[in-house]
Amino acid sequence: MRPLVRHELFHADGRRLLVYGDLCGSLDDAAAPDEPQGIHKRLDAFTGAWVAIAPARNARPLDSTADTGGGAEPCPFCPGGREVPFPYEAAVFDNRFPSFRPHPPPPPVLEEETGPAVGRCEVVLYTQRHEASFGCLSPAELGRVLAVWIDRARELWSDPAHAYVCVFENRGAEVGATIAHPHGQIYALDHVPPIVAAKAAAHRRHRERAGGCLSCEATDADARSERVVSVNDSFVAAVPFAARWPFEVAVRARRHGLGRMADLAPVEHRDLALALRDVVRRYDALFDLPLPYMMVAQEAPADEPDWHLAFELYPLHRAPEVTKIRASVETGLGLYLNDVAPEDAARRLASLDVPAEPIDLDTLFTVTGRQQAPLS
Amino acid sequence: MRPLVRHELFHADGRRLLVYGDLCGSLDDAAAPDEPQGIHKRLDAFTGAWVAIAPARNARPLDSTADTGGGAEPCPFCPGGREVPFPYEAAVFDNRFPSFRPHPPPPPVLEEETGPAVGRCEVVLYTQRHEASFGCLSPAELGRVLAVWIDRARELWSDPAHAYVCVFENRGAEVGATIAHPHGQIYALDHVPPIVAAKAAAHRRHRERAGGCLSCEATDADARSERVVSVNDSFVAAVPFAARWPFEVAVRARRHGLGRMADLAPVEHRDLALALRDVVRRYDALFDLPLPYMMVAQEAPADEPDWHLAFELYPLHRAPEVTKIRASVETGLGLYLNDVAPEDAARRLASLDVPAEPIDLDTLFTVTGRQQAPLS
Repeated sequence: MRPLVRHELFHADGRRLLVYGDLCGSLDDAAAPDEPQGIHKRLDAFTGAWVAIAPARNARPLDSTADTGGGAEPCPFCPGGREVPFPYEAAVFDNRFPSFRPHPPPPPVLEEETGPAVGRCEVVLYTQRHEASFGCLSPAELGRVLAVWIDRARELWSDPAHAYVCVFENRGAEVGATIAHPHGQIYALDHVPPIVAAKAAAHRRHRERAGGCLSCEATDADARSERVVSVNDSFVAAVPFAARWPFEVAVRARRHGLGRMADLAPVEHRDLALALRDVVRRYDALFDLPLPYMMVAQEAPADEPDWHLAFELYPLHRAPEVTKIRASVETGLGLYLNDVAPEDAARRLASLDVPAEPIDLDTLFTVTGRQQAPLS
Repeated sequence: MRPLVRHELFHADGRRLLVYGDLCGSLDDAAAPDEPQGIHKRLDAFTGAWVAIAPARNARPLDSTADTGGGAEPCPFCPGGREVPFPYEAAVFDNRFPSFRPHPPPPPVLEEETGPAVGRCEVVLYTQRHEASFGCLSPAELGRVLAVWIDRARELWSDPAHAYVCVFENRGAEVGATIAHPHGQIYALDHVPPIVAAKAAAHRRHRERAGGCLSCEATDADARSERVVSVNDSFVAAVPFAARWPFEVAVRARRHGLGRMADLAPVEHRDLALALRDVVRRYDALFDLPLPYMMVAQEAPADEPDWHLAFELYPLHRAPEVTKIRASVETGLGLYLNDVAPEDAARRLASLDVPAEPIDLDTLFTVTGRQQAPLS
């Protein structure tokens, strides 16, 4: 594993920029601090879930259309753009339109329960190459992305203000990616969100009733089943038994005790890169189009030894021009309808022929140096 | 309230057709029974939720595009169409592509837990007028729709095979309505779905801890708040305190004890019609377009005396050309981000000027006669 140096810079509006690798410039933008107004969270008494209210986000690029970078507006994520005004290899910056902030404004005082929107929203730039995508990153680029994820997750988890940290990618306009430049995001939250809480409770319940680890058993069952898509020594990629999306895939760690990205041994680090790259390449080959998907890292919440690190991927499509739509039954009842049998989906994904060039451990990175850049 | 007679007919494929009002024809289609293959349900061990697997649904009209009725294919829901081959006022038929059936095939035997897809999926035709919509139904049409809902909900709840019954409408291609003809749907399920279970648990928890009814308190708070959109003697329409959607509205019964549609007194029946019509008219006026929305009736599950009947409406849009997209954070974590403050949304909806002609109790219907049509 090669060392990867992290440089810390700050935009004039107070947002942090982390540059991983060589630092090729400085920030001298003159923007005034732009405090998001009115962000807070509200407790839904009917479900016990917090909802983030972020009126300032209404000013952000439109949800419904993607900036392809080919229009009149230059891509804000390209080198020289608004976020990184110089060449870079990989970078992370504070989201300009955060739903959560380290020091949010006080929440409004209302009859029901509100809270400050404490947390962090970061954007991860995978590469400076605008036309790239996760599936076609070079081994060095892919290695950098994983090193950045591990570095950010480790640091965000270590902050006592955070109860959950989630690395994710929304790819494609259909899932709300407003900018086409290859990037993911990270949310750090001051509370455990509902689906994570439900999964943690399921692990504890299973331990009490059956005496074993739910993640171990699910991973073993995945590997044995017709639902398997690909396996390596450290990870199993399979369409989940009760998949909610036609071509949903979960990439789950086999080793008990590997609950978070910071727990990855070097070989597991490489195997995760191989497994994720393989799934995304299968997605792009499935309908011969850059398949829109959501990819969500599921790291173990605190005090959950039975939770294995997983990445869940939910593509929208069930056919080249047909997407699954979450309508009333999914939205109002939480009941998912899936039109494709998981075994059939896995068979189709597994049968695709995608390149699988090896990744050498020596090409991977680990963030070892952290340098604060001098204020420009 | 006027009597409305219900006629029961059967398509040759075994699907039931209920015609409400005058019966103007018979069924003599010769289709062979078309048994959906492979439908079953699977338990997601990680969340405890059932997922419906319905491979046969892949043959149904596409999710992503709406049949406007103006193309080459005649509308299957118009009089003379595939479903009702004669003029009608309101009708209900078994969905051709059900996710649940009264007598489903046995589920596959797999390592994890599967179950038969027991339940019912029905389609409710609001009117024979293809160009109508919920907001512009005549008083008689609207009254018929409510009478049909009450009739169907009462009967489906009375079947011991069902643990939950949900009347809903998906309006617009964006929420998966594949046919433009004004219609809604009903699902009857053999289990209580996750969001309903969470809400029931919240009601019980609130009763134990605070000694009162959560629905009573929420309805009172809604009526007092800046989030109110409209009120009448029986119902409060408000943007929920912790709304997940920019222009979400909940129409909730004020009277404790009114948990299901079958509990509606005649005046409440009328007030529900007025309240729902008012909200949908505000939606259509909001951006001067037929706003796509999901509308989901929330009836009280068994043994839940503190649950007030509610209709929840979730439109997708936050601006004329911008829809909220549920991406990784909503999908993978269950954390909703809402870009519009509920008070602002309510203010905009409440300020719209929409017609509100009264509905006379005498124009409403109650299903009193039930006739089985002779087999043709």
